[in-house]
Amino acid sequence: MNHDNFLVQPGSKISLKKYDPKFSDNFSNKAESVGILETYVQKLGKYQDVLYAQNTYALLIIFQAMDAAGKDSTIKYVMSGVNPQGCQVFSFKSPSAEELDHDYLWRTAKSLPERGRIGIFNRSYYEEVLVARVHPEILQNQQLPKSALNNNIWQQRFTEINNFEKYLVANGIVILKFFLHVSKEEQKKRFLERIDLPEKNWKFSVSDVQERQYWNDYMNAYEDVFNHTSTSWAPWYIIPADRKWFTRLAIADIICTKLQQLNLKYPTLNPEHQKHLLQAKLMLEQED
Amino acid sequence: MNHDNFLVQPGSKISLKKYDPKFSDNFSNKAESVGILETYVQKLGKYQDVLYAQNTYALLIIFQAMDAAGKDSTIKYVMSGVNPQGCQVFSFKSPSAEELDHDYLWRTAKSLPERGRIGIFNRSYYEEVLVARVHPEILQNQQLPKSALNNNIWQQRFTEINNFEKYLVANGIVILKFFLHVSKEEQKKRFLERIDLPEKNWKFSVSDVQERQYWNDYMNAYEDVFNHTSTSWAPWYIIPADRKWFTRLAIADIICTKLQQLNLKYPTLNPEHQKHLLQAKLMLEQED
Repeated sequence: MNHDNFLVQPGSKISLKKYDPKFSDNFSNKAESVGILETYVQKLGKYQDVLYAQNTYALLIIFQAMDAAGKDSTIKYVMSGVNPQGCQVFSFKSPSAEELDHDYLWRTAKSLPERGRIGIFNRSYYEEVLVARVHPEILQNQQLPKSALNNNIWQQRFTEINNFEKYLVANGIVILKFFLHVSKEEQKKRFLERIDLPEKNWKFSVSDVQERQYWNDYMNAYEDVFNHTSTSWAPWYIIPADRKWFTRLAIADIICTKLQQLNLKYPTLNPEHQKHLLQAKLMLEQED
Repeated sequence: MNHDNFLVQPGSKISLKKYDPKFSDNFSNKAESVGILETYVQKLGKYQDVLYAQNTYALLIIFQAMDAAGKDSTIKYVMSGVNPQGCQVFSFKSPSAEELDHDYLWRTAKSLPERGRIGIFNRSYYEEVLVARVHPEILQNQQLPKSALNNNIWQQRFTEINNFEKYLVANGIVILKFFLHVSKEEQKKRFLERIDLPEKNWKFSVSDVQERQYWNDYMNAYEDVFNHTSTSWAPWYIIPADRKWFTRLAIADIICTKLQQLNLKYPTLNPEHQKHLLQAKLMLEQED
């Protein structure tokens, strides 16, 4: 799969309208994708094992999207082959009072993956330049000093986020950022399904529908995010999300490629450690 | 499978010698178990989905064992069907300076699962009545007040742990505690394998072998733990661990049974919420 179809080239200006949420590359249906997805899922499990053993890198995967774009199920399917011991998922909802009493990166920074782990953010600090931008009253509740509340605040946050991510990457936390690009029509279809299915309707609230009226504002905010925070060290990928099976396939492919590029290796023992191993072997063999 | 073979009856006094690490019930080999384990793994995934939707209970699973008993691989296999978003694994190693500056339950209490999640402790606060008992110098480093450091300290900790667990259970955190019972001979065999396999020897250290000389002390400490902290609200299960496939099978069985007993249900909507849903449906359908 050619990742350039999804990658937001750092420094470029993109328009979301040019990305087709129904795009599915050379695949025409789910059946064609299942076997390949399974291969990726198994590969991912193996990469994670070496990531854990090597204990040098962590992988942070950020998911952002409109409601019902498929974040939860993508996480479930793509990560199904990964040892739960090496994978942590954090969902970020409306910040608590304690969280609002801190800087806006604090609650996510606390939840970054340890070396050797895959950390998944289901929503992230990017909400601070998305929902906080679409609903300015959110910003007013953040107890910010007046000097921060100026017209330049979004540009300022983009810079802060880029610097934060640059620091993370330089210190071994590899970052991948995915936007699940669902169309407004497909969201409507999925909402109606959720309302009709008893096993799904507990997760539905009227406010989800109300939020649809800000659709264009969100798209504008997302475009600005991509145009300012897709960097060479932490790029954004815009993933078509009207076909869930393709979303999973594309994301699994990109994650596998990234882990492959890290050229992960099981630790090799230095001579001293090898001597210790032989010593231990001798001790075991000489036990009565 | 009859769980009474593994359950430490609250109030009873058990002897570990009477538990056979090679026990495998009516199963004679791995091949017989694979299909059944797969069924449990899928069931677990489904239970977890309802646990998450209902958002009332959390499940805390504690694993304790000697080295190489199979904790890591059991977690990996048994949890392979669970959505990583609903499952958190925490491994507790030697406490940090910050952790030692707190009470001994603090670092684990911080990591308890949220409602709707399965939380797994790979080792736990039980180390405080195991390794701390076998190696008294550890206790000396815990900055305890003199009044706590008396001959009664282990009995005191058992009571504290029982009370802590009783509080958790009363508040919706269901607890299962598993001891993976591996024989000293089987541990030796697995250590030698780890030394010989390049993909495994990075996780081996000489101190693992040195710790074997305290085997009997550990068994005595474990027995005392089971005899004092297997309670009606948070029972201990002693799981045979010389055959890894049987360990997985027995644990998956017990977890599934526990979740089944909770009688989990997807939330049903109250009339008001149902009205809201219809309202939302109307709004969606009337969009231009």
